[in-house]
Amino acid sequence: MVSVGDLARALDARSWGDTALRVTGAAEPAATQPVSAGGGTIAMAMAPKYAEALKPGSMAILAEGMDPEAYGLKAAIFAPRPRLLMAGLTKAFDPGPDIPAGIHATAVIDASARIGPGAAIGPFVVIGPDVMIGANARIASHVSIGRGSVLGDDIVLHPGARIAHGVRAGHRLILQPGASVGGDGFSFVTPEESGIEEIRRTLGSREDIRQQHYTRIHSLGGVEIGDDVEVGANATIDRGTIRATRIGSGTKIDNLVQVGHNCIVGDDCLLCGLVGIAGSSKIGNRVVLAGQVGVSDNIEIGDDVIAGGASKIFTRVPAGRVILGHPAVKMETQMEIQKAMRRLPRFAQQLAKLQETVTRLLDKTGKDA
Amino acid sequence: MVSVGDLARALDARSWGDTALRVTGAAEPAATQPVSAGGGTIAMAMAPKYAEALKPGSMAILAEGMDPEAYGLKAAIFAPRPRLLMAGLTKAFDPGPDIPAGIHATAVIDASARIGPGAAIGPFVVIGPDVMIGANARIASHVSIGRGSVLGDDIVLHPGARIAHGVRAGHRLILQPGASVGGDGFSFVTPEESGIEEIRRTLGSREDIRQQHYTRIHSLGGVEIGDDVEVGANATIDRGTIRATRIGSGTKIDNLVQVGHNCIVGDDCLLCGLVGIAGSSKIGNRVVLAGQVGVSDNIEIGDDVIAGGASKIFTRVPAGRVILGHPAVKMETQMEIQKAMRRLPRFAQQLAKLQETVTRLLDKTGKDA
Amino acid sequence: MVSVGDLARALDARSWGDTALRVTGAAEPAATQPVSAGGGTIAMAMAPKYAEALKPGSMAILAEGMDPEAYGLKAAIFAPRPRLLMAGLTKAFDPGPDIPAGIHATAVIDASARIGPGAAIGPFVVIGPDVMIGANARIASHVSIGRGSVLGDDIVLHPGARIAHGVRAGHRLILQPGASVGGDGFSFVTPEESGIEEIRRTLGSREDIRQQHYTRIHSLGGVEIGDDVEVGANATIDRGTIRATRIGSGTKIDNLVQVGHNCIVGDDCLLCGLVGIAGSSKIGNRVVLAGQVGVSDNIEIGDDVIAGGASKIFTRVPAGRVILGHPAVKMETQMEIQKAMRRLPRFAQQLAKLQETVTRLLDKTGKDA
Repeated sequence: MVSVGDLARALDARSWGDTALRVTGAAEPAATQPVSAGGGTIAMAMAPKYAEALKPGSMAILAEGMDPEAYGLKAAIFAPRPRLLMAGLTKAFDPGPDIPAGIHATAVIDASARIGPGAAIGPFVVIGPDVMIGANARIASHVSIGRGSVLGDDIVLHPGARIAHGVRAGHRLILQPGASVGGDGFSFVTPEESGIEEIRRTLGSREDIRQQHYTRIHSLGGVEIGDDVEVGANATIDRGTIRATRIGSGTKIDNLVQVGHNCIVGDDCLLCGLVGIAGSSKIGNRVVLAGQVGVSDNIEIGDDVIAGGASKIFTRVPAGRVILGHPAVKMETQMEIQKAMRRLPRFAQQLAKLQETVTRLLDKTGKDA
Repeated sequence: MVSVGDLARALDARSWGDTALRVTGAAEPAATQPVSAGGGTIAMAMAPKYAEALKPGSMAILAEGMDPEAYGLKAAIFAPRPRLLMAGLTKAFDPGPDIPAGIHATAVIDASARIGPGAAIGPFVVIGPDVMIGANARIASHVSIGRGSVLGDDIVLHPGARIAHGVRAGHRLILQPGASVGGDGFSFVTPEESGIEEIRRTLGSREDIRQQHYTRIHSLGGVEIGDDVEVGANATIDRGTIRATRIGSGTKIDNLVQVGHNCIVGDDCLLCGLVGIAGSSKIGNRVVLAGQVGVSDNIEIGDDVIAGGASKIFTRVPAGRVILGHPAVKMETQMEIQKAMRRLPRFAQQLAKLQETVTRLLDKTGKDA
Repeated sequence: MVSVGDLARALDARSWGDTALRVTGAAEPAATQPVSAGGGTIAMAMAPKYAEALKPGSMAILAEGMDPEAYGLKAAIFAPRPRLLMAGLTKAFDPGPDIPAGIHATAVIDASARIGPGAAIGPFVVIGPDVMIGANARIASHVSIGRGSVLGDDIVLHPGARIAHGVRAGHRLILQPGASVGGDGFSFVTPEESGIEEIRRTLGSREDIRQQHYTRIHSLGGVEIGDDVEVGANATIDRGTIRATRIGSGTKIDNLVQVGHNCIVGDDCLLCGLVGIAGSSKIGNRVVLAGQVGVSDNIEIGDDVIAGGASKIFTRVPAGRVILGHPAVKMETQMEIQKAMRRLPRFAQQLAKLQETVTRLLDKTGKDA
C-alpha cells in the first residue's frame, strides 16, 4: 500500500495535508470519491479547469500554485516536471502481469539453462538448452524461449510471448502477449529469374510468364536487441539470414508490427501499430513510423525521419525528413498534392471551359484574319 | 444427430417429405449426394438456378414456391427469412472448438477464482486470482486470464487467447485463437517536446533535432467490453492508461485488428481485418470500418459512419458519412478524385496543347495589332 | 558436425583444399576468422569484390574461376547454380526449432489421434480426437491441433501455432510461431439490409439509418492446404462457411497476413507481410502480393498477377497484370499518375496563368472587333 507521502517521494514531488492517507490508484477528478477509511484514488487535476470536478474530502495531484484548501482537499501532491508525471505516477501503481515469485512447478526448463536470481516464472513456460537469463526476470505463462538465447536483467515477458533460438536481448526487454521474436525470415528463391525480379529490372513489363516454384532460404542469423526495448502484442520480428536482424536500444515497437529479416532498426525509434518493414531495410536512430506505415525492402531511412500515418515508403529517405502519403513524399509537398487533388474536378471543368473559349477565339481570329 | 424435422424446427421453418432423415451438414447442391442409410448433407438451393445441380434422392433447402417433387428430393425444408437462414443453419451444425465438459486436470486455476456452472476448460489453461467467470464458459487450451478479470455467461475462448488482468467483459464474448485483450498501451513520453509533438504544432517544420529517450507511461486502466462481442484471431485490444479502453455491445472485431489504449468503440460496430485505431480515438455506434482502414489518434468518428476498404482517416468524421480513400473523404468526392486522377496524364497533354495554341494566338494577335 | 567435403556434397559442388575441415556456419567475409582447431565459419565470397575482405587461413565459397590460393585459403567450395546456393547453404546449417525426438511427457494427445513414425512433439502440445499426422512431424511447445484435422508428412509447427478442427494440409507444412489456421470467418448478417449492402447497391447514398444488430454466420467449412505451404508468424487463415478456404501447393504466406473465409488462393503464390484478403476472393496461381496489399471481398485476381507494395485492389484483375497504387491500376498507369500528381501544384499555376492570358486576349480581341 502506498501513502500520499510515499507517492510524493516516488514522484520526487512536494506533498500537502494528511500524507499518511492511502492511495489505491489514480483517476480523473469526476471519478474520484472523498477518501474513506481504507484510502482512495487520487485525482489528476493538474490545471484549474480539471479541478472544477474535484470533490471536497478527496485527494488530488495539482499544478504548482493551485490551492488545495480552496478545493477542500484532504491531501495533495504538487506535480513536478509535468511531462514526466504520468510516467512516474502510472509506474507507481502498475502491478504488471501476475507472476508469483519463484519458478512454477509446471515450467519445463532445460538443465543447461542459467537463470539469474529473483526470477518469477509462471505456469507452462518452456526454456530451452543453453538459455541465459539475467536477474529479476518476470516470465508469464505459456512463454517459450529457444536454445541458446541470451537475455539481460529485469525482463518482462507477457503470456504467450515467443523467443526463438539464438536471440540476444539486453536489459529491461518487454514483450507483450503473443509477440514473436526470431521466427524464420520470408525468403525464397526460384531457379530462374522470378516475375518480381524481372519487373524490378524492366520497371513493369514482362516478356513471358513461366511456371516457378519457390525454394526456401533458411534463416541462420538470429535477432539482436539492445536495452530498454518493448515489443507489442502479436508483433513479429524475423531472424536474419546470415547475420542477425537488429533492433537498437530504447526502440519501442507497437502491436502487430512486422520487422522483416535482416532489418537494422536504430536506437530510440517508435514503430506504431501495424507498421510493416520489409526485409533488409535499414532504419536510422530516433525514427518515428506512425500507424500502418509501410517500408519497402532493401531501402534506407535516415536518422530522425518522421513518417505520418499510413505513409508508404518506396525509396530512400534522407535524415531529418518529415514525410507523408502513398507514395510518401515530403510532408509539405503531400499537403499541396492533397489540396490540388481536392480541386482536381474543378480543374477539369476550368480546363474544358478554357478550351472552349480558346476554340471560339481561334474561330474569331481566324474569321478576323 | 439432427433430423430434417429437428433442423426445420431450429430454423423455424416448414419441412416436407421424410423428416426423420438424418442431416450431417449443409453443402452446395453440386457437392450433395443422395441420402444414404446414415443420412447425408442437405443442399442449399434457395433459388431455381441453384436447384439445377440437385441430385434425385437428396435433401435440400428450397425457397418457398419451389417444388421438391420436381427435383426428386426425399426431404426438403422451405427457407424462411432467407437473410437469416445461413445464420440459423450454420449455428445448428457448428460443434465449435473441442473442449470436453469439466476442468482439465492440467489447468492451473487460482483458488480465489470463481467459475460458474457448466464450464468446459481445456488443458494448460491458466486463470489468475480473483477472476470471476459466468455460467457455461468454454475455454480452450493454452488460454490465460489475468488477476481480477470478470467475464459473463456463455463465453467461448479459443486456444491461446489472452485476457490480461483487470478486464471486464459481458455475456457471450468470443475470442478467436491468439486474440489479446488488455496488453499495455503504446504510450511514451520524452522529457522535452518530442519531434512528433513539434511537427504537430508547426505542421511539418522542425527547428533542430535532439537526441531523445522515451519514458514509459504504464497502463493502469483495463478493458471494458459489452455483451455479444467477438474478437478475431491475433487481434489486439490495449488497456487504457487511467480509465478503461471500451468496446460496446454487439461489436465484432476481425483478425489482426489493433484497438489502441483509451479508445472508445460504440455498439454494433464492424471492424474488419487489419484495421488499426490509434490511441484515444472514439468510434460511434454502428460504425463499419472495412479491411485495413486506419484511424489516427485522438479523433472522433460519428455514429453510422461507413469507411471503405483501406480508408485512412486523419480527421473527425461526422455521423452517417460514407467515406473512402487515402486520405479519406466523402465517397462521392473520392470517386470524382479517382476519375480525375485517371485523366490526369490526359489533362497534362491538353493543358500543354492549349498553352501552345494560346501562345500562337498571342503571337498572331500581336502581329495583327 | 559438417566438413567442407560434406557441405560441398550437400550443395552438389566442387571443393578444394583441406576438405576435412569442420564448418560451423556461414558468414560474410569480414566476419570470418582463420580456421581454428575446432573448425570455423565459411565465408560467402561469390564475387571478387566480396573476396577482398577474406582473411588468409580461412574457408570460403567462391565463384567458379576465382583462385583460392590467391586469397591464402585453407579450403574452398565453388558455388554452383548461384541463385540456389543460399537455399542449399542455409538449409545445411539450419537446426530449426529445438524439439527433442519423441513425445514430451506433458503433451496431451487424444487416444484416437494417429501420429506417424519419427515424430518430435514438445511440451504442452494438445492434439484433439481423430487427428491424423504423417511421418516425421516436428511440433514445438504450446501448439494445438483440433478434432479431425489431417496433416501430411514432414510438417514443422513452431511454438504456439494453432490449427483448429477440420483442417487438412499436405506434406511439409510449416507454421511459424502463433500462426492460426481455421479460426472462424468474420461473417455476420442483419435481419434487414445493412448499411454496407445499401451503399454497395446505391454506390454511396443512404436513405435512412437504422439500428441494426448482427447475427453470426458460423463457419462449418474447414481449411484445405496443399503441399509445401508455409504460414508466417501470427498470420491468420479463416475457415470457410460451407466449403473450405483453400491454399494451393507451394504458396508462401508471410507474417501477419489475413486470409478471409472462403478464399481460394492458388499454387506458388507469395503473400507478403500484412497482406489482407477479404472473404470469398479468389487468387490465381503464381500471384505475388507485396507487403500490406489489400484485396476486397468477392473479387478475382488472375494467374501471375504481381501487385506492388501497399496496392489496394478493389476490382477484378486479369491474368498477368502488374499493378500498383491505391486504388491499384496498371503499374505504368500508376507511374504516370504519380508523375502527374507531383506536377499538380504546377498545373494549377499554369492553368490559372493561362486563364488570365486568355481573358486578356478576349478583352483585346473584343476591343479589336
